[in-house]
This record gives sequence, C-alpha cells and structure tokens, in this order.
Amino acid sequence: MRITRIVERSVPLRTGLSNARSDFSQMTTTVVAVVSDVIREGKPLVGYAFNSFGRYACGEQIRDRIAPRILAAKPDSLLDATGSNFDPLAVMACGQHRERRGGYAERCIPMGTVDVAVWDLVAKIAEQPLHRLLADRYNGGAVQARVSTYVGGGWYFPGQTADDLKAEMERHRSAGYRMVKMKVGGLSVAEDCKRIEAILSVMGDGANLAVDASCSFDHEAALEYAKAIAPYRLRWYEEPCDSLEYRTWSALAQAYGGPLATGENMACALELDHFLTYAGFRADRDIIQIDPPLAFGITEYLKVLDVAQKHGFSRRSMYPHGGNLMCLHLAGGLGLGACESYPDTFGIFSGFNDEVAIADGHARLPESPGIGFERQPGLYAVMRELVA
Amino acid sequence: MRITRIVERSVPLRTGLSNARSDFSQMTTTVVAVVSDVIREGKPLVGYAFNSFGRYACGEQIRDRIAPRILAAKPDSLLDATGSNFDPLAVMACGQHRERRGGYAERCIPMGTVDVAVWDLVAKIAEQPLHRLLADRYNGGAVQARVSTYVGGGWYFPGQTADDLKAEMERHRSAGYRMVKMKVGGLSVAEDCKRIEAILSVMGDGANLAVDASCSFDHEAALEYAKAIAPYRLRWYEEPCDSLEYRTWSALAQAYGGPLATGENMACALELDHFLTYAGFRADRDIIQIDPPLAFGITEYLKVLDVAQKHGFSRRSMYPHGGNLMCLHLAGGLGLGACESYPDTFGIFSGFNDEVAIADGHARLPESPGIGFERQPGLYAVMRELVA
Repeated sequence: MRITRIVERSVPLRTGLSNARSDFSQMTTTVVAVVSDVIREGKPLVGYAFNSFGRYACGEQIRDRIAPRILAAKPDSLLDATGSNFDPLAVMACGQHRERRGGYAERCIPMGTVDVAVWDLVAKIAEQPLHRLLADRYNGGAVQARVSTYVGGGWYFPGQTADDLKAEMERHRSAGYRMVKMKVGGLSVAEDCKRIEAILSVMGDGANLAVDASCSFDHEAALEYAKAIAPYRLRWYEEPCDSLEYRTWSALAQAYGGPLATGENMACALELDHFLTYAGFRADRDIIQIDPPLAFGITEYLKVLDVAQKHGFSRRSMYPHGGNLMCLHLAGGLGLGACESYPDTFGIFSGFNDEVAIADGHARLPESPGIGFERQPGLYAVMRELVA
Repeated sequence: MRITRIVERSVPLRTGLSNARSDFSQMTTTVVAVVSDVIREGKPLVGYAFNSFGRYACGEQIRDRIAPRILAAKPDSLLDATGSNFDPLAVMACGQHRERRGGYAERCIPMGTVDVAVWDLVAKIAEQPLHRLLADRYNGGAVQARVSTYVGGGWYFPGQTADDLKAEMERHRSAGYRMVKMKVGGLSVAEDCKRIEAILSVMGDGANLAVDASCSFDHEAALEYAKAIAPYRLRWYEEPCDSLEYRTWSALAQAYGGPLATGENMACALELDHFLTYAGFRADRDIIQIDPPLAFGITEYLKVLDVAQKHGFSRRSMYPHGGNLMCLHLAGGLGLGACESYPDTFGIFSGFNDEVAIADGHARLPESPGIGFERQPGLYAVMRELVA
C-alpha cells in the first residue's frame, strides 16, 4: 500500500468580493490530490483537499519539497500499526523532513492542504465518512448529526445598499440559516453600524450576527469599534487586529464584554498556545477559529484541541474557519461549536455537498466515504482533472 | 524612473554539510534581480539579492504575487520624496498589497529577498556602498570601517575526526579569523564536548568559540547541554530550541550564565517583540540574530533595531545572521555587533567579495556602489545571467 502521486493545481477564486482590507480578485487556492494504489471499484482511491480562501496557492512547496519526500519514503513507513491504512502523523513527519523548527507559517498551508487530503484518503480506505473516523478515534465515538452552522456573508461590494444586504439575509434565512457573520471595518463606524442594523432587521436578535473586521484596525480603532458595537450584543467580534497583537487583544478582553474571536491566521498549535497565554482570551466565552488546511491540517488540529483544553477552552469554543465540507466533518466528528458556510460566494468552492441539507441553522452531516467532494460537482470536476 | 523587471531563479546549494537536525543536500536558495530603467555606463542599474542558506527557494510567491504588484504600480508611487531614487518602504508596501496581516512567515522570505535587492539598487543609484547609505540615513553617518566577524564553521560531515576539526580551525586562523561558531547537538553531549575541546585547542579561549544547536533539543536536553558546556565559558550558546519555545528560553536564561543567541527563524519585528517580552532574554549579554532576507529585508531590520532598543538591547547585541556581503554592510553601516562569514562552505554563495580583506578577526568594508556582488565572481555569474 503506497502513495503513488501527489498532484496540485492553482485555481483562481474569480470573485469580486472585498473585506475591510482587500478585494479577493487576484487570490488563488491550491487544489491537491493524493493518489494511492488502493483499488476500489476498479479505480485507485484518491484523497482531495484545497486550502482556504483569501490566501494564495502554495504549489511550489508541495511540488519541490513536500511531495518528493513523501513519494521517496519507504511505503511501509507511512502506514499505521495495522498496516492496512496510511498514518497521517507519519505522512506529516515525512513531509517535513529537512524543514526548520520555527517559521512555521512558511509551510503550514502546503503541508496542511496535503494533510487534509491524506485524511480524506484514510477515511475512504476505512470506508467511513471522515466525521465518523475522527469521532471513533478522538471523540469516544460521539458524532453530532446536526452541526450548528452560520453564513460567512455580508461582504462589501461596490454600490451595495441596505436593501441589498437585507435581500441577502432573506436569502440565507430561506436557505435554512439562522446566523450570519458580516464584514466590517471597510467603512466608517457610523456607516458600518447602519449595515449592522440593516442586517439585524432581518436576522433578529444580536445573537444571530457576528462581525469580522479582517484585521483592519489599530489598537485605538479596535477599542473604539468595540464600544460602538457593544449595544448590539452581537454573537462575536472577530479579528479587529491580527492575532499576534496581544496588547490589543488583552485590552479588548478587558473593555468588551461580548465574545471575541480569532485564529484563522495562526499557523500552528504553538502559536495558539502563546496567544492563549498572553492575549487575555476568556475561556468562558471567546471563540477560536483555526483553519485546518492553513495550519498543518487535521493532524495539527488535534494538537490545537489539546492546547485549547489546557487553557480551559471546551471543544464548543472551537469554530474551525473556512466554510467548507472539511470543517463540517471536523465539527461533527470532534464535537466542535459550529462550522462556517459560504453558500454562494466562492464559485466552485462554495457550500457543502449535495448530501448536506441546511435546516433551522444546522447542517446535516454527509455520509459518503471520506470528505465527500465527489458529490460537490463543480469542485469535483477540477479535482478529478488533477488525476486524469 | 521605474522598476522594469523582477527576475528570480532557484539555485541548489549543492553541499554535503549537516547541522544537528538535517543535511543541506536538497536545499535551494532564490537569487533575485530587480531591474530599473536608470542607465549608468550604458546599462540599466540592477539590484541583486539572495535568501539565506538552510532554507528553500521562494520563487513562486515572487513570480505570482510580489513582482506583479510592484511592476503594476504607478512608477512615481515607488519613489522617495526627492523623486530621484526608489523608496524601499513604498516598494515593500506595494509588494504586500492584498496580503493578510498575521502569518508573516508565509511571505517574509520572498518579500525580504526582493527588499534587499531594492536596497542594493537604491545604493547604486545613490552611487554609495550600501553601508554608507544606511549610516547616513540611520546611524548619524557613522560607519565601522572594520567589522568584527566570525566563521560559521565546525559543521558535521561523515567520518570527521578531531584532527579534521583542528585543521579547519587552523585554516580559519590563517585566513585572519579569530572566532568560530560550531554546530553541536548532532552527537551525544560527551562526543560534542570532545569536538568543542578539539576546536578550543586551536582557537584558544572560550570567548573565541560559539556553539549552535540548530533547534535540536527539547526542554530537558537544552538545559542538560547548558550545564555541560558552562565550564568552557563560550562566546554564546545558540538555538538549543526554536525561538518560539519561550518556556525553554526562560529556563535557560535562569540556569545558564553565559550569553544565549537566537533569531534566524524569526519572521518579523513583531515576533522579536514577543520573544523579548516573554522569553527572558537578557539585554546585558544575549545576542539577536535576525536574518534580513529571511525577515522582510533591510526595511524590516530597521524596525527590528527599534524593537531591540525598546527592550534595552544595544545595536552591539545585534548580529545579523547569514554570513554574506549583505549583512556585512548592515553591520558596518548600522553599528551592529558583528557579521558572520562562511568563507568556503556554500559554493558560489561563500565568503564576501574581493574587496573584503579579513585580518585579526575583522572584515574591511567593500567600497563598490550597492552591496558589491559584482565583485563576487561565481555568484555574479549567476546573477548576471538572470538579466541577460
């Protein structure tokens, strides 16, 4: 049993969306396929993944460093103790041979994307949906059949009116969603408050709305904004600044009573450990949003859970960032708080697969083996082409 | 006045050297040329740089992200207030348009390498050696004409004997060096101590020898090693662990009286700020070794100096990592503690240029405009080819 090929391709996102800091027009993502020699129904099993939006492709590191190491390894060295499946931890260690300690962000995305594809492959070999495999191994077998989900929406676009925002929210509600996260920080506080109020007029209670400032504020602006939004009692206040800016986070944790959220720009569990040690985050309410393919994958996410637990955060505080099928499995199989969703904003990468019904703010878990990208037609067309 | 092309190429290091964690056989570096339309002696002026050893090429980010942004900018937006030269800060801001805050390590190397090439170009346009330009702008005009330097040597290689190490040290002493840094952590403590003693038998006092463990130790091993080497009273103890492992550094700063050193894996000034806040480093003795092209370049190095100063570290505590002509200019022009040298270990990247004489443990500064790679023949042959 061996990995025979690792193939990647850079795919443009082709979207006109913007957050507070930048538009996404030039952004790309890397789609990766990890091909095995395990034959099912006459074809080799393949694991698939892609890295998250709002970043860039990372193919060179996969092509030049990570894939050659994995393909050159003794096949048995990548198997688990049973010898009947791959061991994602062994593949991770192999993929990082001859890399530095430190500077983790330099390779956390390519390695994370390959790792998620390896987990897809491992679950397919085990003939289980990924959430079931994860639950059996790391959650005492418990699966959340219905996962709390929310829309990453309320983006900026040119000429947007309050009515546009309301129409968007009506659409999300009709689709079965009950909570939304919106972008803020791209306009003045007063103008953003009008956008918040337009959205609340459809979504109802502040608990149904979170705001994401995409790291656009400096220290003073982050605090000023906190004061402005406090009366809305929103579900959370996300990324007023980068998660490395501990001083600002500590001040916010003192000044702002509502939940804070961050994590999508963290590279590894050690970065989270520092953040939770120094930034004043509060285990009783704040939310941790590590993005698995951006942070060494599902293998590292298991360490992330340990670090969070060490600091008193429950698994319900963990909201994997990304808005995709990969994170839905993690939330369902590991007992996490919720999973984001991008129903219609990122082209072929949008939404979940055709097995996932949304109702009353929850997503039903898919039951295909692995992650189930095979039932997400536009995306699977690109993935399949990789191994054609 | 504009930047017309940014060209890069991946070059294999082709060396059999090892440190405690890995061999360097598969490693690559990126050589970059930033071409202007400023004509001198009938030819366009070009800035050159390369990223440091023991890492990997970073061409994709330059090709796909950084270079297209800089080349698409309005030419005037990249000039300084005089309009007669490029402004490295403006080029840096432009090169990072549409990048995230946070996750800095993902782009600190490609952006840092381009930045150093921009400074080479700026100094050439100003018809000054880079150290003079830096001294005039950021050091009250004061240049250290002779810069303290030491050899990054004492590597592991298969079959190495104590006599091999002694012969290497004799060679360095004959070449004018008086201090060496050696690799440790790749053998048992007892065997490494024998290597230390062999080297000291040639180099004399412990103040002439530093040890570099290349992040190979866990917490306990780092402390055990500190105890073992304490009697040698070495110049410094470098990177027992990664600079993110604050707990281990704090314990070492308590347990080990001699100087500690780290920094080459840091991505940016903010990472240094955290390290100096949380890791127990001592301003009266410890040494900071940021590597400019690995950490957003010379532009960010100026912020690094401010952060170090804020924490009470003088410029004499700053030893830019890398062992090359770029760092020699920084040390000479900014009043830094010393500059590393790799006289013969990295092929065409080895050593300084033909203007740099070594005597009594010091390097004389080169006087060519810019950095002066044009007088480092093997390397310049590769650089020149980029723009042919």
